Amino acid sequence: MAIILPLFYEELTTKQKTAKSSSTSHKGRLGIWLIGARGGLGTTTMLGALAISRGLTSSTGLLTETPLFAPLLLRPFADFVFGGYDIRNTSTMEAVKETYQESQTNLPPWLETLKKEFARIDREILLGTLRNSGKAIRELETDQSLLKDKRRLAEIVEDIRRDLQSFRKRNKLNRVLVVNLGSTEPPLDLDDTHRNLKKLEAAIRRNAVRKIRPSLLYSYAAALEGCPLLHFTPSNATLIPALQELYCEQGLPFAGKDGKTGETLVKSALAPMFKYRNLRVLSWQGYNILGDRDGRILHNEENLKSKIRTKDSVLSSILGYPLHTHVGIDFVPSIGDRKTAWDFIHFEGFLGQKMRMQFTWEGIDSILAAPLVLDMCRLLDHAAEKGEKGSLPYLACFFKAPIGGGTNDLHTQWHNLERYVKAQKT
Amino acid sequence: MAIILPLFYEELTTKQKTAKSSSTSHKGRLGIWLIGARGGLGTTTMLGALAISRGLTSSTGLLTETPLFAPLLLRPFADFVFGGYDIRNTSTMEAVKETYQESQTNLPPWLETLKKEFARIDREILLGTLRNSGKAIRELETDQSLLKDKRRLAEIVEDIRRDLQSFRKRNKLNRVLVVNLGSTEPPLDLDDTHRNLKKLEAAIRRNAVRKIRPSLLYSYAAALEGCPLLHFTPSNATLIPALQELYCEQGLPFAGKDGKTGETLVKSALAPMFKYRNLRVLSWQGYNILGDRDGRILHNEENLKSKIRTKDSVLSSILGYPLHTHVGIDFVPSIGDRKTAWDFIHFEGFLGQKMRMQFTWEGIDSILAAPLVLDMCRLLDHAAEKGEKGSLPYLACFFKAPIGGGTNDLHTQWHNLERYVKAQKT
Amino acid sequence: MAIILPLFYEELTTKQKTAKSSSTSHKGRLGIWLIGARGGLGTTTMLGALAISRGLTSSTGLLTETPLFAPLLLRPFADFVFGGYDIRNTSTMEAVKETYQESQTNLPPWLETLKKEFARIDREILLGTLRNSGKAIRELETDQSLLKDKRRLAEIVEDIRRDLQSFRKRNKLNRVLVVNLGSTEPPLDLDDTHRNLKKLEAAIRRNAVRKIRPSLLYSYAAALEGCPLLHFTPSNATLIPALQELYCEQGLPFAGKDGKTGETLVKSALAPMFKYRNLRVLSWQGYNILGDRDGRILHNEENLKSKIRTKDSVLSSILGYPLHTHVGIDFVPSIGDRKTAWDFIHFEGFLGQKMRMQFTWEGIDSILAAPLVLDMCRLLDHAAEKGEKGSLPYLACFFKAPIGGGTNDLHTQWHNLERYVKAQKT
Amino acid sequence: MAIILPLFYEELTTKQKTAKSSSTSHKGRLGIWLIGARGGLGTTTMLGALAISRGLTSSTGLLTETPLFAPLLLRPFADFVFGGYDIRNTSTMEAVKETYQESQTNLPPWLETLKKEFARIDREILLGTLRNSGKAIRELETDQSLLKDKRRLAEIVEDIRRDLQSFRKRNKLNRVLVVNLGSTEPPLDLDDTHRNLKKLEAAIRRNAVRKIRPSLLYSYAAALEGCPLLHFTPSNATLIPALQELYCEQGLPFAGKDGKTGETLVKSALAPMFKYRNLRVLSWQGYNILGDRDGRILHNEENLKSKIRTKDSVLSSILGYPLHTHVGIDFVPSIGDRKTAWDFIHFEGFLGQKMRMQFTWEGIDSILAAPLVLDMCRLLDHAAEKGEKGSLPYLACFFKAPIGGGTNDLHTQWHNLERYVKAQKT
Repeated sequence: MAIILPLFYEELTTKQKTAKSSSTSHKGRLGIWLIGARGGLGTTTMLGALAISRGLTSSTGLLTETPLFAPLLLRPFADFVFGGYDIRNTSTMEAVKETYQESQTNLPPWLETLKKEFARIDREILLGTLRNSGKAIRELETDQSLLKDKRRLAEIVEDIRRDLQSFRKRNKLNRVLVVNLGSTEPPLDLDDTHRNLKKLEAAIRRNAVRKIRPSLLYSYAAALEGCPLLHFTPSNATLIPALQELYCEQGLPFAGKDGKTGETLVKSALAPMFKYRNLRVLSWQGYNILGDRDGRILHNEENLKSKIRTKDSVLSSILGYPLHTHVGIDFVPSIGDRKTAWDFIHFEGFLGQKMRMQFTWEGIDSILAAPLVLDMCRLLDHAAEKGEKGSLPYLACFFKAPIGGGTNDLHTQWHNLERYVKAQKT
Repeated sequence: MAIILPLFYEELTTKQKTAKSSSTSHKGRLGIWLIGARGGLGTTTMLGALAISRGLTSSTGLLTETPLFAPLLLRPFADFVFGGYDIRNTSTMEAVKETYQESQTNLPPWLETLKKEFARIDREILLGTLRNSGKAIRELETDQSLLKDKRRLAEIVEDIRRDLQSFRKRNKLNRVLVVNLGSTEPPLDLDDTHRNLKKLEAAIRRNAVRKIRPSLLYSYAAALEGCPLLHFTPSNATLIPALQELYCEQGLPFAGKDGKTGETLVKSALAPMFKYRNLRVLSWQGYNILGDRDGRILHNEENLKSKIRTKDSVLSSILGYPLHTHVGIDFVPSIGDRKTAWDFIHFEGFLGQKMRMQFTWEGIDSILAAPLVLDMCRLLDHAAEKGEKGSLPYLACFFKAPIGGGTNDLHTQWHNLERYVKAQKT
Repeated sequence: MAIILPLFYEELTTKQKTAKSSSTSHKGRLGIWLIGARGGLGTTTMLGALAISRGLTSSTGLLTETPLFAPLLLRPFADFVFGGYDIRNTSTMEAVKETYQESQTNLPPWLETLKKEFARIDREILLGTLRNSGKAIRELETDQSLLKDKRRLAEIVEDIRRDLQSFRKRNKLNRVLVVNLGSTEPPLDLDDTHRNLKKLEAAIRRNAVRKIRPSLLYSYAAALEGCPLLHFTPSNATLIPALQELYCEQGLPFAGKDGKTGETLVKSALAPMFKYRNLRVLSWQGYNILGDRDGRILHNEENLKSKIRTKDSVLSSILGYPLHTHVGIDFVPSIGDRKTAWDFIHFEGFLGQKMRMQFTWEGIDSILAAPLVLDMCRLLDHAAEKGEKGSLPYLACFFKAPIGGGTNDLHTQWHNLERYVKAQKT
Repeated sequence: MAIILPLFYEELTTKQKTAKSSSTSHKGRLGIWLIGARGGLGTTTMLGALAISRGLTSSTGLLTETPLFAPLLLRPFADFVFGGYDIRNTSTMEAVKETYQESQTNLPPWLETLKKEFARIDREILLGTLRNSGKAIRELETDQSLLKDKRRLAEIVEDIRRDLQSFRKRNKLNRVLVVNLGSTEPPLDLDDTHRNLKKLEAAIRRNAVRKIRPSLLYSYAAALEGCPLLHFTPSNATLIPALQELYCEQGLPFAGKDGKTGETLVKSALAPMFKYRNLRVLSWQGYNILGDRDGRILHNEENLKSKIRTKDSVLSSILGYPLHTHVGIDFVPSIGDRKTAWDFIHFEGFLGQKMRMQFTWEGIDSILAAPLVLDMCRLLDHAAEKGEKGSLPYLACFFKAPIGGGTNDLHTQWHNLERYVKAQKT
């Protein structure tokens, strides 16, 4: 963490100056600081941005590349500069290959052409913190040094701030976004400490480790450093009320939480249909199986709770009445990142007749999530540019549990986004 | 057809006067003239209206019973008076029981309490026409007299008009709606005759049987009699351009075509989701199996064509690009009215990765369709009241192939309906 | 429970004499003493036997009615006399109707013709015992008197014996079978008490309630009374080693355990296919949902354990290697007895390629199980007649966890049964 | 066809002499002459044999590598020498890569190590014949020279014989098997010409092109050359009665037809389960989608007929009664070789209750079929060694429509194979 090798510094800045000159826009460069940079989602996000800016792949999956968004003149991916934290000390290129192996698909033929880029990124990825991250995360193949980390909370915050500063300076960044893609943490029991900024800061000062999670330390430091935040996981510690308050005070926007990419996406697209027909949903059972690192973490009951909370609230909020639901998540190593879900929907129609619908969804998790991360980085950047602060309700369609509330109905969420974008045009 | 037995006349009107006095609104009574009154959908529609107006069943499945529609003060079902045509000369109560048998569910315990009502309805259901209806329909258990019917087209039109008049008069109806629930006819090759009202009328006068279908005769007579039309089937003869013109001239509204009740409903609810995420749908295969009378008709290749046309146009219109699609419909007698569909969706996401989604839908066809018929009868009645004429674009969410075009996206369709309704309130 | 009302006795025996004369075979009458007589499975079993012996329904689902079994001259259902225990004090006819309601299907039109029969059966169903049956079972709608039962274990055994004796005598039965269809009990921790008959008897004498379950008391008394036993549930207390020993000593046959009726049946039919092709199964996930009383009991974690043990052992025993499996069982009240399962099978083929198969099974539990109970009653009766004792390995195809071991491969099990039956013919 | 380039001849034989010395068994080398050598199945078969004999992949999917078959001392794959016909003039290595692309999976890392082997095989693959092969096959990317081929039938037969002779001689082969993996031909109308060998030979002499198909010419020449035949496709011309007679006369074994690899395999594994429980199958609908070359051919109605005939006969033969079935096969280019099927099974159980089961099968066709080809090559070789002739009933478990009849019940078929193998051991 924060060990900047002076050896490479000169070389690095020289190279990056060159890189900068190739920037395709007048806006300058945008730093993307990924928490969990070498996970399946982190690597796919970086790979995608690099591949698109070099014309190696199509823009399928990316919303901000569709004509609707053209008038917003969003930052091109060529201006993105990646860095961040991880808890494994491996090579990013290796991590990319692992991700492909988990999804059981071909490595793209052009992958090797990005070798230098990933080597450069490697120098921007530092070791994060595991303080109070819970048993399941500690048991991943974390770097051993992290387990011995003795720093006080206040020191960790300072280190994170210094890392962000030096990332920004070294790369001559016009803005840095912090993006939480880390493993799902166990839920944090929220109390007054988390609702009041002063109490939170006091808790950090007195090193109240039990009151925090790593993601909270990252987002606290990010706010202090003026970095907008994208919170893509279900962890409840990342954007506690006190931090939301701090972001607003700092005039910074944030977006969260828990990217809506698979089964929940389908749920929120389908459930309104039952409402439009006044069909009463009696039971909606959802069973998810997955085999990647995410699955391994969710195999742990504590961490699983965080996830189920965000997944299970969707239906009754759309339908407007309580109903029998169930969300199961099971770890099936052999399927890797090819997440599969079976949903069974039992509903009642006219004259009390009962009917059923079922679906199976077989999606590659990181492939579905990465373009959402990229889309939102651009939109958060745009929002910061426009001086928007706090939660951005028009991004709700990207999340399982949108902060700031609002409907979970995917279509209404989408129409809100569309309306926002169209309003920007003029 | 049109053989009103004078014997029962006096008795009938007496009874109906009594019935009328129990009308729950000041609007008077609304005639619903069903083409295909004793089919699965016709019987379920009548049964539902009777049961709801007597408080025997809940309003699940009926949209116009939800609070959204309350301010419109739509006609209560107690004011509905049913009549119509069928090609079978059976008892309606028997037909209701058959429908239940086909859906393999319990007869409701209160069914017998409606015995008298159905007996009354029986007297309002006449034999229709089979003129040029195609082989498959003629082979249903039609009344033998129909096969020997020698009337000229012009005579048939006159008879239909007289039937509508006497239905209206006998029941002291304030308005009569004609509702086409008849079996799917083979597609009619449209030419100038069908685009020009004068040519159409000339063709009828010269008895050009090949140029018409029964549903065309019904809707032509209906327009002449001032009856708004609900066209719930895929038949393309029912609302040919010449007739749409006639409806407009007469200042009458119509709605069609092909009720969106099952697999296509799901398609139009799900397809937008792929658009919101810029996921490219590569192939969408849909396989439908059904075993009721509808299935028997669609087992015939000619009639099937009509149906597939309306079902298959939905996807590319929502997604905005051509894609590989397939709609199969097969007859599986053992499943009766419990229509089942399997849809397989192959799509491409970020970095060219391919993924899949599948769903199965198991719905009881008549149960899903009947409340739509009832909802639209009320809304057509409301439109006629307000002096609206021609197609009603805000009803698009109810149809597979909305006349007057517009999007097939269920959610946009729904928001249009919602907007219309809310605008009415003030 | 052993409370024979002297009032009805004379009347009862007179009636049954008459009934006896209508017996269609020379073998005399067979008593079927059902534990859980008024549950979904008990009522369906009785209803089926009555309906078949009166020619009211086809023999679909019954194996012993197929030509293969004809030469065995098995006891006709007209000779079956039903009685047993339940923990609810309701009418059996009402219980039959509830069962139909749970399966959401039509009551058969001939049901009322069996009214008298069910009234007669009602007099043969007594209250059972709840001693140490666990929380979940006690919380069913049990008769309040059972909760206050203070008898010592030895007294209960005596009462059961007396009940069996008087059932046999009153009905002039040639043989009585005891059939355990009771709710799944929580697993009993087995120790020396359960492996040694003397220790077991000592434990009963000293009233060691914690060492027993109701099903153990029933089967112990049954063995003492010379009744062959059919153990159709997963409870592990019913046929503990000490009781198996007692049955052998008494020269009595038994069969068990846990009827193979749905998802596990399919598993044991499909798994051999993978073996025949040397395809390696990597993961086999099975998710079951059900909403009947069985589901309510299994909703309790303790009781669930018993079930999962018998369900989950099947695959690796067929395939011959350990594999990743999961069996989930969830309670979904709205689906009643229409048990639904989704199985996901991930397997590896040639050149290390991975493929997948999925199935859904939608069966009515009691409808699938009842004919197995009837088939096995006949075959147990036949075995007793032939002097066979102990476990009957040729019945393995009917069970999830056949006592006496052997393969779980359905086809090998079936061929064993076929071979046994054919050998009997000569 | 049969154009051996004298240039390479010397070089070739020298190389192959070397190769021979590396044979791992005393039995000498076995020639495998593949019709359709460069199709997905042909290439996977060759790739698999090469990879296994070099220890590059596991034996998953190969039955003859399991301990059961060890005592038969079957020919090791290292002794297999591949050659054959194709209608495309491409490189085999390219064809292997195409096959992988169609199945959308990773190329194995060791593929390049087999480069030389595939180059050697390329010299053994000649252009086949398209005579009367039907429109669909002619429209594949066939070599243009084939479309201009003017040879008479008798000449073609002679050429094929010469090709087989020179393959055998050049490679010093101890035996040559001919394996039909060619595209499914349209069904040939069989008449007396096909039932009587003399008439068939007369038809060939008089060049009655309409009476033959390419696969018939291959198998006729094969029989004359003493080559056992493996007929792996549904084409009905390959093993017409006259040819079966010829094989018997020549003392040669053959096996066919139509490899049972996917949906039909599952059908024949599942259907017996319904029989064991006396559950009556009412309807069994099967929908197959596939996108490879096979799919393109079956997209043609004529060719499709051949396939459906073999697929659809399976069920009623297992169940013993006629039932409603349907087999659909549709071309969905985007899914390539990842064949997907949905089967819907409606069945009746006890008391007339109806229930349903569904499955989806997602298999890679060539991956499932290739090991069957290899297994049967070994077993045909073994049979020829033992002097067995005509059809080999113990191979029925590998075929959709086993020649020589017998049950389609997969389990009985398997037990027959097992019995045969065990009998050989002693």
